[in-house]
Amino acid sequence: MNLNNIIDRIEEILSDNNDEALKSLLEKYHSADLAEILPQLKEEERIKCFLLIDKQKEAEILEYLSPQYQVEILSGIDESLASDLIMQMPHDEVADVLGDMEEDETESYLNKLPSKLSNQLRELLAYKEDTAGGIMNPRVLTINQEMKVEDALSFIRTKAIDDNIELYYLYVTDKQKHLLGVVSLRILLTSNLSTKIGQIMIRDIVRLHVDDPQDMVADIFMKYQYNALPVVDLYNRLQGIVTWDDVQDVVEEETTEEIYTSSGITTYVFDEDDILSGKVINSVRARTPWLFITLIGEFFAVLVANKFDATLALLPITAIFMPLLAGLGGNIGTQSITLIVRGLSTGQVNLKKAFKYIFRELVVGLAIGLLFGLLVMLTTIKWQHNIELGVIVGLAMVINMTLATLIGTITPFILKSLKIDPAIASGPVIATTIDVVGLFIYFTLVTTFLIKAM
Amino acid sequence: MNLNNIIDRIEEILSDNNDEALKSLLEKYHSADLAEILPQLKEEERIKCFLLIDKQKEAEILEYLSPQYQVEILSGIDESLASDLIMQMPHDEVADVLGDMEEDETESYLNKLPSKLSNQLRELLAYKEDTAGGIMNPRVLTINQEMKVEDALSFIRTKAIDDNIELYYLYVTDKQKHLLGVVSLRILLTSNLSTKIGQIMIRDIVRLHVDDPQDMVADIFMKYQYNALPVVDLYNRLQGIVTWDDVQDVVEEETTEEIYTSSGITTYVFDEDDILSGKVINSVRARTPWLFITLIGEFFAVLVANKFDATLALLPITAIFMPLLAGLGGNIGTQSITLIVRGLSTGQVNLKKAFKYIFRELVVGLAIGLLFGLLVMLTTIKWQHNIELGVIVGLAMVINMTLATLIGTITPFILKSLKIDPAIASGPVIATTIDVVGLFIYFTLVTTFLIKAM
Repeated sequence: MNLNNIIDRIEEILSDNNDEALKSLLEKYHSADLAEILPQLKEEERIKCFLLIDKQKEAEILEYLSPQYQVEILSGIDESLASDLIMQMPHDEVADVLGDMEEDETESYLNKLPSKLSNQLRELLAYKEDTAGGIMNPRVLTINQEMKVEDALSFIRTKAIDDNIELYYLYVTDKQKHLLGVVSLRILLTSNLSTKIGQIMIRDIVRLHVDDPQDMVADIFMKYQYNALPVVDLYNRLQGIVTWDDVQDVVEEETTEEIYTSSGITTYVFDEDDILSGKVINSVRARTPWLFITLIGEFFAVLVANKFDATLALLPITAIFMPLLAGLGGNIGTQSITLIVRGLSTGQVNLKKAFKYIFRELVVGLAIGLLFGLLVMLTTIKWQHNIELGVIVGLAMVINMTLATLIGTITPFILKSLKIDPAIASGPVIATTIDVVGLFIYFTLVTTFLIKAM
Repeated sequence: MNLNNIIDRIEEILSDNNDEALKSLLEKYHSADLAEILPQLKEEERIKCFLLIDKQKEAEILEYLSPQYQVEILSGIDESLASDLIMQMPHDEVADVLGDMEEDETESYLNKLPSKLSNQLRELLAYKEDTAGGIMNPRVLTINQEMKVEDALSFIRTKAIDDNIELYYLYVTDKQKHLLGVVSLRILLTSNLSTKIGQIMIRDIVRLHVDDPQDMVADIFMKYQYNALPVVDLYNRLQGIVTWDDVQDVVEEETTEEIYTSSGITTYVFDEDDILSGKVINSVRARTPWLFITLIGEFFAVLVANKFDATLALLPITAIFMPLLAGLGGNIGTQSITLIVRGLSTGQVNLKKAFKYIFRELVVGLAIGLLFGLLVMLTTIKWQHNIELGVIVGLAMVINMTLATLIGTITPFILKSLKIDPAIASGPVIATTIDVVGLFIYFTLVTTFLIKAM
């Protein structure tokens, strides 16, 4: 699917005002495709196109859209149609949309919905958005352990017709909704019809708690690889289920956070969306903290360089190699920190094996350092016709790159053992540390071997 | 679960040689937990523990383990037990394990398995590891459209007992295995028993092709959010299914690749695993290309600085601000490129909106640049008692940070429009470009306003 061509085609038809042609074009696409197409249009075009689409598909498209566009469309269309659509969407999705609206708008919608639905939604809205309670779907089919398999099957037959019921596993509860066990559809479908549910259910269930933070939920899903997990309250009463597609969005969010954090963009005050395309001031505030720390760090580098002002005055040529040393040290150090931080995040690397990785990176750093040191030495000698300078710059390069690798490897392990998120140490801090240490080593070498020899 | 405590406890019991205590300790954990615990032990301990675990759980644990440990364990245990375990695992998992073994070892295993199974496995092994064919499970329950719902249900009852069948949807095929439609279990369970499958099946199916590369498979899953997708060959004959947990691993791999690439670690020659913990030479080769490009880039920075050697000789103090300017420019530029590259990857940012983002980043860069320029100016004036120098350094900081933001924002859009993966432009190249441009601007300002005024 070539998004740009489709958009162009839609805009062409829109300018012709040919609703029939537009309708038949839109009908060709899957709801997930349409949810990619619509955000590319202008607001009034988006709502016009949305209204031309099949009623049945509209609710599906809303589910695929991001909250921003869900709210925009629901606010832009007729209120009774909006209520209809809301009733067709899974409860957790609706709660997300309502949670993203202005408070009085949310109230106005809730008041228009049937009271049973609006009560359920109000309960959902009470959970924090980024917890298991906030992402779960509260509608779950539950059975009791005294039922026979055939009773369970006919129960499903009458209860699961509603599109909103997500049918992955059947959860077994008692009358007070305490979670007792789980039966997969496969087991249910292949068991003897007269077997009691209590006999085939699994009692050791991985379960989530309503207050579990969403990143923990994502980790549990990734680890156990179930399609859905039950969510219980403090008293083990079943409150809902979280399905893998709910978690998908969380994983993407968490990945974005990991990537942002490692580039020195703080994510704990503002949403990723706000930083990328919200108010400028949010973006400035999310980006300034680590830049400020870099500023302080680089001032130390300035002070180090200033310590050697006599050296610089005597041999100003030595200054021109500063960016070379800092740049390569920073790069190789960032590579190391990236490898270790990502490894810690996926579980491939752990504290127990820290020394193994530190030693390995040391060897890698030394190998690359020797290679690059040699290159830099030869180039400098050839260019400046100054063997001593070449040797010093080359030697500084070897030490600098090796040290950078070492600092980049050790830092995340230290942070991890102090229970600090190692991602925050990345890029900015490492680059600065390496600037300070690298310049100090370089100018010490220059002062000791070049100036003293003059 | 505190992994370190558990490992310590296990090693304690191992040194006591108390198999009973070890067995009962291991029984307490879920297979997914055990798959996290085992890799932390030494090889002989790992195999000893594995053999103490319930036969039934062993196959499950193998599934959760990474290929490296799967191969190690299967090679380390009795061959007949290994064959038993292989028969209990889903075919796609087995094919992955066999594919990771030495060729003669693979052959020796295949020869020991029942010929029907070994033929299916050989077929799977023929697909490239990183395609839909390579990650799919070839065992799918298929029904035909003439069946009634009750026939389908009794068909499932007899055929789906085997643990290896993954039951998400029922696929409808003709006698030549051409894929005609799909019925979800929910629809099957809630439809009238005498309805024909042909009447309730969905005909417009999102399908994968055996040769689809795995990153495309992952994108399709993320977009449509199905639990499973059918895989067909060139003639639309059903070959297998890919389930969301297969894709999970792919997504993690792709994310790692994205993160590695943006730190200048190339991933197209070696596996991520190889780079992190394989041979040192692989790691050196994966890390050297971008470092080498940085080297060349930084030599340009050296040349630029050298152009101003007369300035440096007259005012060597100006050299000490180089790391400050380069460091902050590099950092803010990296932030911008991270935001845009990640946005392009998740689909939040696209080429159509390029100008909007470029303008927004320009404003952010200018705002932060002015703030930091002011800070640097005041600090420098206070420290060096030199107003002119303070103004020049501050001004260079503003220009440098604004330009860095702009370069960091524009570059990924240019690469994207040239159909080059924007991730590769990150970190290294940007930092170098900013070093070169930033130094040029700084020394031009110094030469024009400080030296000329002397």
